[in-house]
Amino acid sequence: MEQIKPRTLSGFMELLPQQQVQFERFLNTLRTTYSLYGFTPLDTPIIEATEVLLAKGGGETEKQIYRFTKGDNDLSLRFDLTVPLAKYVALHYGELTFPFRRFQIGKVYRGERSQRGRFREFYQADIDVIGDGALDLSNEAEIPSIIYKTFTALGLKRFKIRINNRKVLNGLFELLGLKQQAGDVMRTVDKLEKIGREKVIATLTDEFHVSAEAAGNLLHTLESTDPLNALEYYRGKNNLLDEGLNELARVAHYMEAFGVPSDHFVIDLTIARGLDYYTGTVYETVMLDHPEIGSICSGGRYDNLAEYYTDKQLPGVGISIGLTRLFFVLEDQGYLNGDMLTAPADVLILPMTDDFSPAISLATALRDAGIRTQIHGEQKKFKQKLSYANKLGIPYAVFLGEDELNSGLNTLKDFTTGEQSSLDTQTMIALIQAGLKEKSKGTPIQEKESTL
Amino acid sequence: MEQIKPRTLSGFMELLPQQQVQFERFLNTLRTTYSLYGFTPLDTPIIEATEVLLAKGGGETEKQIYRFTKGDNDLSLRFDLTVPLAKYVALHYGELTFPFRRFQIGKVYRGERSQRGRFREFYQADIDVIGDGALDLSNEAEIPSIIYKTFTALGLKRFKIRINNRKVLNGLFELLGLKQQAGDVMRTVDKLEKIGREKVIATLTDEFHVSAEAAGNLLHTLESTDPLNALEYYRGKNNLLDEGLNELARVAHYMEAFGVPSDHFVIDLTIARGLDYYTGTVYETVMLDHPEIGSICSGGRYDNLAEYYTDKQLPGVGISIGLTRLFFVLEDQGYLNGDMLTAPADVLILPMTDDFSPAISLATALRDAGIRTQIHGEQKKFKQKLSYANKLGIPYAVFLGEDELNSGLNTLKDFTTGEQSSLDTQTMIALIQAGLKEKSKGTPIQEKESTL
Repeated sequence: MEQIKPRTLSGFMELLPQQQVQFERFLNTLRTTYSLYGFTPLDTPIIEATEVLLAKGGGETEKQIYRFTKGDNDLSLRFDLTVPLAKYVALHYGELTFPFRRFQIGKVYRGERSQRGRFREFYQADIDVIGDGALDLSNEAEIPSIIYKTFTALGLKRFKIRINNRKVLNGLFELLGLKQQAGDVMRTVDKLEKIGREKVIATLTDEFHVSAEAAGNLLHTLESTDPLNALEYYRGKNNLLDEGLNELARVAHYMEAFGVPSDHFVIDLTIARGLDYYTGTVYETVMLDHPEIGSICSGGRYDNLAEYYTDKQLPGVGISIGLTRLFFVLEDQGYLNGDMLTAPADVLILPMTDDFSPAISLATALRDAGIRTQIHGEQKKFKQKLSYANKLGIPYAVFLGEDELNSGLNTLKDFTTGEQSSLDTQTMIALIQAGLKEKSKGTPIQEKESTL
Repeated sequence: MEQIKPRTLSGFMELLPQQQVQFERFLNTLRTTYSLYGFTPLDTPIIEATEVLLAKGGGETEKQIYRFTKGDNDLSLRFDLTVPLAKYVALHYGELTFPFRRFQIGKVYRGERSQRGRFREFYQADIDVIGDGALDLSNEAEIPSIIYKTFTALGLKRFKIRINNRKVLNGLFELLGLKQQAGDVMRTVDKLEKIGREKVIATLTDEFHVSAEAAGNLLHTLESTDPLNALEYYRGKNNLLDEGLNELARVAHYMEAFGVPSDHFVIDLTIARGLDYYTGTVYETVMLDHPEIGSICSGGRYDNLAEYYTDKQLPGVGISIGLTRLFFVLEDQGYLNGDMLTAPADVLILPMTDDFSPAISLATALRDAGIRTQIHGEQKKFKQKLSYANKLGIPYAVFLGEDELNSGLNTLKDFTTGEQSSLDTQTMIALIQAGLKEKSKGTPIQEKESTL
């Protein structure tokens, strides 16, 4: 038979079983946390009509898009979860109740240049709250609190959420007479961390003809360690700035009420989030020990989700986690908790009678008690079966031969302690359940001692 | 602004929030059941290299495939989860432990002619056990037992699993001198239910030159109400048939040990499952009140999973549920349990103070207790906020105004009973938890009284 060499496309993550279990743990943690905050799960097609997906124009993304025809249809694979959300809300507007709070975790596609740690197929995990005509500011404080809860539930400790408000930035630019160039100036400020203070000032004075003094003052304010106080200097001079300042103060106040510790968030006026899309609070999240990764969770407030599809005014606020890349980086850096079970089963039953019926009945009893159970019915040596359990990390084995059937007691082997004991089924189930409870402690991420 | 009419492609399921919650319940039930049986979750790319995906040749499917080029790459979207599994096992053979038990729930793509209830993007939910060189027969009994457990956990009652063994059929055909045409005869038999007894006999005598007597005997055996007994007539005449007969008897014996009630499975010799692929036990599952839907879960034993990728002999057994179609049919027929919560939250907090901090703190306490909570902070009338809760089916509301803050007691409204009460936070949490426990009883599917 002619054979084809099996391969997986470059830029497409395909995990081995143990890694996959760890990744599933991320997915479950996100689903649980998002649900606790009252978000409903959503699922939209991966394929959309190209004209719908590119209604806004794809910008940078357009070149990366997977686009093709099938019959007469011009189709594309979604490149984010925001455009499908906009389509969904516009299409189903009459059937939805607002504010509409949804989470979506799904694969998106971008034909990026292939390089290590960059993916062409990757999971995004988004939450958004969409209002009908209006949306209260408190949502802008709740969203970063959910970021905090999510990463904490995953077990991440050394991260910080940076927040800013686009009204503050636009107000400052207006004061400098830069209203027309606000977008370009914003993108210049966004590069502050990358290109440095001097270059930003040079760009402002040379390209945008800001006076050296004004540029210096702007940078002084943006880089202030007490930004709310520094901004007070400008109060009363620009309505937009005043509004942004009030919003920023209130968001910070509410974030404390939401239980975000003060060392886990900071107002950082240099965070601009380049997209024109954002109009209020914006967020970035950085790992303190890995600033080189960039933001692991970003988002913000926008005033018009679906203007390309509908006249309805649909303001919203949301964040997105690039989950595949985050998982890749955390695994690469040794952050995954290796102490948690990754085995496909908790118990392996080794039947040692010709008729497997007693083993099958025991498996049924264990499964009914919520214990994940496999029966090893293959024609293998006893030692090979134990090796199978050990390779997979299955914590318990039960031997069931004539002796056990006669005595009514199962032989339980606990691989963690190495102990072997004879137990009736109910006692054994209780023992295993207690052991599993112990083994399931901990979080998917475990930061290394050295970084704490 | 130029607007594009939002739309979702025909043949692509996109659910409203309440339906989506019901669909998620299906997904969770499947994940839980499959895990209890010791299957590990797997996730493979949706896009594969076309030469890899079509290594076997796509047959009927090839015309339906979504295939396109990106750069120099000839790519295709997966059309099932079996070919990606074969690729995965061949590619990662050295890193896997066998028997390899995996489940995969994911979207697959087929450009079928668009019609009601047919989907171009749909979820399949597969489980397979793959052996390395050999695989014990007991797996062929465990797999249909998992079908039984899965549908029972979903709440389905009136269904039956039909099992057969390809060795029995091939043995019978050999006895009739039809070894060469076994495949064609198999496909003729497969149509028995559809075209009827007479036409099958006519095809056998006219096309395959079987004597009228032999054809009559064959049909008599296949349609016997006591097939194991009927097959005994042939014992000793053909090795393959003898082997199949023994396997069928043992699989039935083990299925009982696995706890499948005798009225939920039947040996049916007319089940052939057309594919050449299968070599041992085969399965179909039918809803007793909806035979017109066809099989809702099918599969079987195969001897060589990945022969197009590797020389390794990898026998296996597996089943697949076409989840999107099943959900569509069940919803269409009114099978979904409308009594279960589909709300995005369990509690809606209505803050009635300018500063939302007390409402936020209460929300945090509820969420910490595992209660899904929303804060309604919008500038809306009290009545509109209650209407929001009712539209979404949120079962509880908590009012938090000056009175409540002064007394330290929350006002809890239970929409199910209509009762309103003043409670301290801990008492309220306990009450809500008890109420939610009650409301979460039941199964995702609830068969109508008339069909029971």
